[in-house]
Amino acid sequence: MSDAARMLLATPSHHGLDTAVLAEAIDAATAAAQASTACADACLDEYNLQRDCVTACLTCADVCDVTARLLSRSARWDRTVVTSLVEACAKACSACATHCEGHADTAKHCAVCAEACRRAERACQQLLTAFASLAVSS
Amino acid sequence: MSDAARMLLATPSHHGLDTAVLAEAIDAATAAAQASTACADACLDEYNLQRDCVTACLTCADVCDVTARLLSRSARWDRTVVTSLVEACAKACSACATHCEGHADTAKHCAVCAEACRRAERACQQLLTAFASLAVSS
Amino acid sequence: MSDAARMLLATPSHHGLDTAVLAEAIDAATAAAQASTACADACLDEYNLQRDCVTACLTCADVCDVTARLLSRSARWDRTVVTSLVEACAKACSACATHCEGHADTAKHCAVCAEACRRAERACQQLLTAFASLAVSS
Amino acid sequence: MSDAARMLLATPSHHGLDTAVLAEAIDAATAAAQASTACADACLDEYNLQRDCVTACLTCADVCDVTARLLSRSARWDRTVVTSLVEACAKACSACATHCEGHADTAKHCAVCAEACRRAERACQQLLTAFASLAVSS
Repeated sequence: MSDAARMLLATPSHHGLDTAVLAEAIDAATAAAQASTACADACLDEYNLQRDCVTACLTCADVCDVTARLLSRSARWDRTVVTSLVEACAKACSACATHCEGHADTAKHCAVCAEACRRAERACQQLLTAFASLAVSS
Repeated sequence: MSDAARMLLATPSHHGLDTAVLAEAIDAATAAAQASTACADACLDEYNLQRDCVTACLTCADVCDVTARLLSRSARWDRTVVTSLVEACAKACSACATHCEGHADTAKHCAVCAEACRRAERACQQLLTAFASLAVSS
Repeated sequence: MSDAARMLLATPSHHGLDTAVLAEAIDAATAAAQASTACADACLDEYNLQRDCVTACLTCADVCDVTARLLSRSARWDRTVVTSLVEACAKACSACATHCEGHADTAKHCAVCAEACRRAERACQQLLTAFASLAVSS
Repeated sequence: MSDAARMLLATPSHHGLDTAVLAEAIDAATAAAQASTACADACLDEYNLQRDCVTACLTCADVCDVTARLLSRSARWDRTVVTSLVEACAKACSACATHCEGHADTAKHCAVCAEACRRAERACQQLLTAFASLAVSS
């Protein structure tokens, strides 16, 4: 069980979501933030510099980081704000993954980063589906 | 002239926007991030604690902070990602301002914070209008 | 193997450190950032509010978050700056853990958070020892 | 009067510091965070790429950002933790300024950034002096 999942189980769940879906979104965004921070650094160190990839990674890292934070504050979040941020996060992850996949064959760090970003993108989309179900039922 | 404006004038403008609109969005988001961080701290110190206001302030601070960062990377940003984040930022600022306005008469820091958040909300909306014009003209 | 470790193995190691020590510091700081963000939120939701614990958790989250970022940029970091930040991180983790341990018996989230913070504190100290060895040998 | 100063005057001052010294540290760290984020982006866009300067700017931005946050939570901060972070911030600003000054004559954004970083470095040092005075008097 991840640290995020342990923490969610140790707190009252006012959020009404499946804990596994929320924990995966937090874990995946956290992992993508770390991977894209490290990937930007490694890309910057490459002889054959991909400038757009560095910027996409820095952007993805920042957005994933703040998304993991907001998702970790589930006691009294504003669902409208959180939903909007998760949408932005899915887009940032998708953009970063697309850049990294473009040269994943020559840069191993881009392959690892692209995988982390695609996982976070999927987790965000699953969370958006769960939010939409809540909106219908509430 | 603000630091953000000086910096924008010291760099090539690939973004195609009115520099004043972009600088105001950066400055307003930065100021709202600081105000809401300080307001959360001051609210937490109040005898009559407004828990929802603390969370709204922490959320607003995080989203404004990352928005100012992304807007400061205008050389090769992804307009789709940036637009989505600016939309989330406008919502976070609006939510925080609404909470703070609810007790601005008894807490001076909430009055100052609400004003900073409304300014950032307006600046985000003006930037979104500017992005929409670019999309039409490009 | 953690994502941080996979990423470190996918990039050239200019840092001269044992990869396991660096990966553990990144993973532990990342986990403590998430735990203390969630713990601040859960503490704020408690009937019996511990205000100092909320502030200690927010502080710890911010410092751990930026520490994980700097440690993820190992290609060309400034060892003096990184060392200084890791020292601050060890202190922030220790302070947060001490607060959380003070009521870990009544709040499960504080018990989980304290454990995450002590792990990050230890990982920071081990990294500081490794940096000191580098300084002697170089 | 800056937003940070207005906010400090709107809250009880438990910190025991001269409000002007604290407000300047918050404002200077905030301005340096924005300048170094924008400078990293502009440096990355230069034909003659200075890789070390990009990393120094990204590091400085992250450390300044978190320093401004911690300084904005003056109601119940842990002076040991805050002092340690302000020391790290002074070092990060100094390192970034040194890099930027190295090519300030050819890159205007580096000149603006170096100025912002030197201001933040000075403000951190003045705050450290103020903290030391408090420690003696308390």
